[in-house]
Amino acid sequence: MRYGYFDDVNREYVITTPKTPLPWINYLGSEDFFALVSNTAGGYAFYRDARLRRLTRYRYNSAPLDQDGFHIYIKDGETVWNPGWQPVQAGLDLYRCRHGLGYTVIEGMKDNVFTRQEMFIPLGDNCLLARITLQNKGTEQKSIKVFPYVEFCLWDAMDDASNFQRNYSTGEVEIGERAIYHKTEYRERRDHYAVFWTDRTPSGFDTSRDAFLGVYGSPARPSAVFGNGCTGSCAHGWQPVAAMQFDLTLLPGEETSLLLGLGYIENERGNKWEAPGVINKEKAQAMMARYADNAAFDAAMAALAGHWTSLLSAYTVASGEEKLDRMVNIWNQYQCMVTFNMSRSASYYESGMGRGMGFRDSCQDLLGFVHMIPERARERILDIAATQFPDGSAYHQYQPLTKKGNLAVGSGFNDDPLWLIAGTYAYLCETGDFGILQEVVDFDNDPALAAPLMEHLRRSFT
Amino acid sequence: MRYGYFDDVNREYVITTPKTPLPWINYLGSEDFFALVSNTAGGYAFYRDARLRRLTRYRYNSAPLDQDGFHIYIKDGETVWNPGWQPVQAGLDLYRCRHGLGYTVIEGMKDNVFTRQEMFIPLGDNCLLARITLQNKGTEQKSIKVFPYVEFCLWDAMDDASNFQRNYSTGEVEIGERAIYHKTEYRERRDHYAVFWTDRTPSGFDTSRDAFLGVYGSPARPSAVFGNGCTGSCAHGWQPVAAMQFDLTLLPGEETSLLLGLGYIENERGNKWEAPGVINKEKAQAMMARYADNAAFDAAMAALAGHWTSLLSAYTVASGEEKLDRMVNIWNQYQCMVTFNMSRSASYYESGMGRGMGFRDSCQDLLGFVHMIPERARERILDIAATQFPDGSAYHQYQPLTKKGNLAVGSGFNDDPLWLIAGTYAYLCETGDFGILQEVVDFDNDPALAAPLMEHLRRSFT
Repeated sequence: MRYGYFDDVNREYVITTPKTPLPWINYLGSEDFFALVSNTAGGYAFYRDARLRRLTRYRYNSAPLDQDGFHIYIKDGETVWNPGWQPVQAGLDLYRCRHGLGYTVIEGMKDNVFTRQEMFIPLGDNCLLARITLQNKGTEQKSIKVFPYVEFCLWDAMDDASNFQRNYSTGEVEIGERAIYHKTEYRERRDHYAVFWTDRTPSGFDTSRDAFLGVYGSPARPSAVFGNGCTGSCAHGWQPVAAMQFDLTLLPGEETSLLLGLGYIENERGNKWEAPGVINKEKAQAMMARYADNAAFDAAMAALAGHWTSLLSAYTVASGEEKLDRMVNIWNQYQCMVTFNMSRSASYYESGMGRGMGFRDSCQDLLGFVHMIPERARERILDIAATQFPDGSAYHQYQPLTKKGNLAVGSGFNDDPLWLIAGTYAYLCETGDFGILQEVVDFDNDPALAAPLMEHLRRSFT
Repeated sequence: MRYGYFDDVNREYVITTPKTPLPWINYLGSEDFFALVSNTAGGYAFYRDARLRRLTRYRYNSAPLDQDGFHIYIKDGETVWNPGWQPVQAGLDLYRCRHGLGYTVIEGMKDNVFTRQEMFIPLGDNCLLARITLQNKGTEQKSIKVFPYVEFCLWDAMDDASNFQRNYSTGEVEIGERAIYHKTEYRERRDHYAVFWTDRTPSGFDTSRDAFLGVYGSPARPSAVFGNGCTGSCAHGWQPVAAMQFDLTLLPGEETSLLLGLGYIENERGNKWEAPGVINKEKAQAMMARYADNAAFDAAMAALAGHWTSLLSAYTVASGEEKLDRMVNIWNQYQCMVTFNMSRSASYYESGMGRGMGFRDSCQDLLGFVHMIPERARERILDIAATQFPDGSAYHQYQPLTKKGNLAVGSGFNDDPLWLIAGTYAYLCETGDFGILQEVVDFDNDPALAAPLMEHLRRSFT
């Protein structure tokens, strides 16, 4: 059975059927904002920490599988389908997914409507961008309806998946002309909100899941899509979502595109509101303005490609063996960078709720990426060392949002601290930056206990 | 909108449409084994503790909603349906759900096949019993296939819903002629297993969810049911389930029944195996033998009805107001007993994972049920008091399986200990059993700190 192939020129893996044995995912994001995206547009987004700042809801081990994500519904007459096949699972006339370096492109066609869904996270920004390109490949005019849909997570993914008696009562949104703001707990205890935006005014929207899917409906059969369209619902509690409806007419051969974004915004405590109960949207509006047209989208995507070209240029091989070169020059290094970014804290098997980042894991992972980003390896070493206990032992893991250790799986693993030595050694070999050993670093994140990194290594060993 | 009515003679609430505004559930079980069952046969079962000993998996806040439970699929030609509508959601010619006192009966009919699904938990035993009665109401012979299906939970519901990198590798089953045994971790660390049995040999079975539903399938469209039948799969890791297939032929007017059970079995550590790697099934076989035919099923159901008649006879009113009498004589007391049994630790909004039983809640709940079961109220008072700290303060909640306090939401709530006085006072007023005040009870479950209950009350107040 063949599911796809490597495209070495474009540095992509191309998947040619949506029905892979299991969802095949890509990891988007290289700084603070991340998304997991499957070959059928399933997945979720988070800011820094897959447990504590999850933007969209994802149901692990669900049946049906992988139906939460970044889906687009196309309604063409009475036929409803998704370019990525899921969640409706309608048969497609064409399907292709390109998992590239920090981006994913899904193409689908049905009944002469061709759709391309490009997704990536721009450098230096906390948002997922998507461009939906639609083209009428037929000889007759097409009137179609397009519905993007995301379901919000109420920030703490563990609480979101367990504390229903509380979190069914907390959901809040604000609705703008081209944007839906998710602001659950912003009033009470948070200084961040999410925004789902578009570049044109939709003809309809929903922010209540029950309104869009139907109480007994599902992502595979949203009642608004299969029925009479979005209802203009405003979520109060229950499940806030962002769904929009666009009614488009395409002449034969005509192509149009729709720009979408999902952003994370933090405001200072003193600057949270623009009016009583109305969130301050300045930063969100600035974010939307940065990606307001196709040229801006293309430029951000080109910058990301350049970033990867630069990262991968530090170490290359030309062995004459196509498969060896492909792995060394592209995919192994890409995987090492993903491991740097996520430190195995979130995948389709690691729920992102249970572990944070591992002390041992993160030290080991350094060996794979230190040559690509030595300055961030340096920062990582110091972050890890700062969680170490004064007696040289270590929390087994730490939370990326707070950079503080947690005891979820205990501490006192004998080998944990030794890996800090191995990671630092790898950094020294790569950079010759022996000055790092003199950096003063907290123990247990307590500045009163700080000591040079060299002293951390000494205590690791004794 | 009218969804049902009270049947006072049978002490039932009768629901006449599956599409209630949300699932309407009943609570089965009165001792150690419990199940939540919705009006469409959704829900789950657990032994004592909804977090630590959950037998079947239930996805809260799922979309689609309430598709995990105790479902029966009927395949009649190419038409697939469920007597309770969910999860296939095929239209029914007749639907009725009777939520009674500790039992639920769901009836559905389609294309002249009438099905009744009766469910209850017998007194004194750790199992959920179900009887599926099928009748051909038409004038032609019917050949149908019947598939019962449950998905197992890997015991700890919180871990089951979060620790996938581990629990996808642990699932284990054993397959008998008329029974499927779920024994995940029985070898390594558990002395309990679950058994799903039937009274006749099925023509097929599955124990792997992926085999029965399909990797991209769902409970709404199991590939084995919509396709060519069960595959005989044996789960190793991933998701163990119990699915069976029965091929039945019914003459016009003919009726047949199928007995099913889902049981929980504990073995002593020294007596776990009947052969290397083969679990000791003695107790399971004895359990199955206890409910081997319709007469045994009926007798157990009658015993449960007698139990409820006895409980409700302690306090009755005849006011001449139908609605007042109904609430006082049946439903309020029933609800108070459910509260005794579950102490709000598991419902369709309380996930059963987060809190265990509340110290304050359980003391308050005593006031509602003490007149029905004073001897169990006595036991509950002593259990609660045993979790109290020596200084009179209290854990806010405790785990019903271990009867030990947990700090999941902290301790030191000022009013918690005062409710122990209120609960004990209610018990004394009802029973006059002042001897309870001299009962010696642990503090913090430590026998070295034990003192008379009266001393607990004194410390609660000071």
